[in-house]
Amino acid sequence: MNSDALQSYLHDHIPLSRAMQVTVIDISLDRLVLGAPLAPNINHRDTVFGGSASALAILSAWSLIHTRLRREGLTARLVIQSNDMRYDRPILGDFTAAAGLPDPAAWDRFVAVFRRRGKARIAVASTLECDGQAVGGFQGAFVALATDQPSA
Amino acid sequence: MNSDALQSYLHDHIPLSRAMQVTVIDISLDRLVLGAPLAPNINHRDTVFGGSASALAILSAWSLIHTRLRREGLTARLVIQSNDMRYDRPILGDFTAAAGLPDPAAWDRFVAVFRRRGKARIAVASTLECDGQAVGGFQGAFVALATDQPSA
Repeated sequence: MNSDALQSYLHDHIPLSRAMQVTVIDISLDRLVLGAPLAPNINHRDTVFGGSASALAILSAWSLIHTRLRREGLTARLVIQSNDMRYDRPILGDFTAAAGLPDPAAWDRFVAVFRRRGKARIAVASTLECDGQAVGGFQGAFVALATDQPSA
Repeated sequence: MNSDALQSYLHDHIPLSRAMQVTVIDISLDRLVLGAPLAPNINHRDTVFGGSASALAILSAWSLIHTRLRREGLTARLVIQSNDMRYDRPILGDFTAAAGLPDPAAWDRFVAVFRRRGKARIAVASTLECDGQAVGGFQGAFVALATDQPSA
């Protein structure tokens, strides 16, 4: 899945990503970077709304796992279970969220458990940046469910 | 600040709240409830996108503190510092976020510290509901800064 395909997928299936004008900046095995401009994500203080910052981080983390699963030839329902978010500095302009695995070795275990049980859990981190400076951090737990599993 | 005034304020100053079609459902001293419909907040699985759920919770929490500070005759820059969020169930339709103080007694301390130092911190919780059922929970830390204080 290349950048254009992922961007179209997000815009077509998650209308808020279109409203946020989310763009796909980089997809590699270990890192997925999304960006968004200030204007549609601005708040009453002319900085980025915390909800937009959170949403971009969630999208980057979800997209990393989604694209990696596809590379493995796997289809899953990928659900966010929990996250925490730190807003370290006001975000004064266009911003990015770069997702990666806090424990890269967790990937093989995640895939093995998913293949065996049809359900597996993985942690994803994402760093928010603006103008080359880290401005916030996200960590989320995602569950992949085989599409024939119940969702509860 | 009544419901219509708050809703206009949010829509005018935070364009994402307009894209999400956020409505103000209830404002009381102890509880502030916002709502949003499924359609503009949907994801690829026809449930509410986690980023929309997070954003509505953040807006409800921010709005609770903003409106309470105004009742005290105080003006502050109100900044989110951190939050955690649990997504307990898929959100299958229109949803609400009801914000309150996990420790109601913290309010008087918060206001006293803010008046004295021009800076004070408070925790806010918000419960997400859909069709009368709790579907997720948010807890966030907000800092109020006197408008003549530096933002760092």
